[in-house]
Amino acid sequence: MAGSLDALIDALRRLPGVGVKSAQRMAYHLLQHDRSGAVLLGRALQQAATGVQHCSRCHTFTEGELCGVCADTSRDARLLCVVETPADQAALERTGSFRGYYYVLMGRLSPLDGVGPREIGLPGLAERATDGRVEEVIVATNFTAEGEATAHVIGEMLRPRGLQVTRLARGVPVGSELEYVDLGTIAHALADRR
Amino acid sequence: MAGSLDALIDALRRLPGVGVKSAQRMAYHLLQHDRSGAVLLGRALQQAATGVQHCSRCHTFTEGELCGVCADTSRDARLLCVVETPADQAALERTGSFRGYYYVLMGRLSPLDGVGPREIGLPGLAERATDGRVEEVIVATNFTAEGEATAHVIGEMLRPRGLQVTRLARGVPVGSELEYVDLGTIAHALADRR
Repeated sequence: MAGSLDALIDALRRLPGVGVKSAQRMAYHLLQHDRSGAVLLGRALQQAATGVQHCSRCHTFTEGELCGVCADTSRDARLLCVVETPADQAALERTGSFRGYYYVLMGRLSPLDGVGPREIGLPGLAERATDGRVEEVIVATNFTAEGEATAHVIGEMLRPRGLQVTRLARGVPVGSELEYVDLGTIAHALADRR
Repeated sequence: MAGSLDALIDALRRLPGVGVKSAQRMAYHLLQHDRSGAVLLGRALQQAATGVQHCSRCHTFTEGELCGVCADTSRDARLLCVVETPADQAALERTGSFRGYYYVLMGRLSPLDGVGPREIGLPGLAERATDGRVEEVIVATNFTAEGEATAHVIGEMLRPRGLQVTRLARGVPVGSELEYVDLGTIAHALADRR
């Protein structure tokens, strides 16, 4: 088989969740049915790898010095929302119900994987949140064990600095039936009833 | 979000089996944890897309005029094995028990998807098999409905030209227990008992 085909299969395996068989299938598909897709993807990878950096204020991916949200001066500077990933930020933005700024951790605390406070930029978050304008930090990390631990650490770090630290409400998802909601969620929804 | 990040996510969706969520996950992973992987994959794609062609004799992927197998003059020119994909050829090669040449269809007959005899190179196969040296054509297409139909068409095409056309044996897989083998396979294994 061709050397550059083997090289392509090896390179595709660097993608998360892609094993040998999937990589082979992808390589064959691109070479047999979608060469223009291969060229396009190759170019997009090069461009993103060299052009995409981290926003200097919120750490999300951006091509300039500041991302679009941080560059928008019309937002509410008193609110800072902490999320794990740019995808979480995008989900919040799509709701259209948050007008503050974000801080993107680009991960979550995970000591077993060697991800500590420094890896997810907590020192930077402390600095960002104490800019004198932020009053409330909304911690929107995931409700997983690691996301909860991360939220706890952030609360411990920011509350002593006089900031209000809140968490997204836990409760029954909109449109769901109680019968199929897990017990922990129902217990939380009961405790936080209003 | 960055324009070249969106472009990368769109491009990743050209890969088979990759939807929006997987593409996002792949893009974030590469940009956050594996930039060198992104550059490597980008380069591998460009190189494969421009460098990989089809072997002029067997149609498999190769970088030269002939693939390694076709260029090997020590093999048995009387045997020609027809497979659907380079992966199938690789599987047969790994057994070490076939010393003839291959013809790679790069697909299978699938009229509903617009894949006819011309798309899988059957005219080229007819020419290749009648080079005066080939005596037996072993049809190793998959034992799926489409693979069987392809094998049937190949048999109809080559038998009138005086070639012996055979098919891989169907039977119980090595190491398997009868209880868990499907009935069609057992029936075939019974009929082809030896």
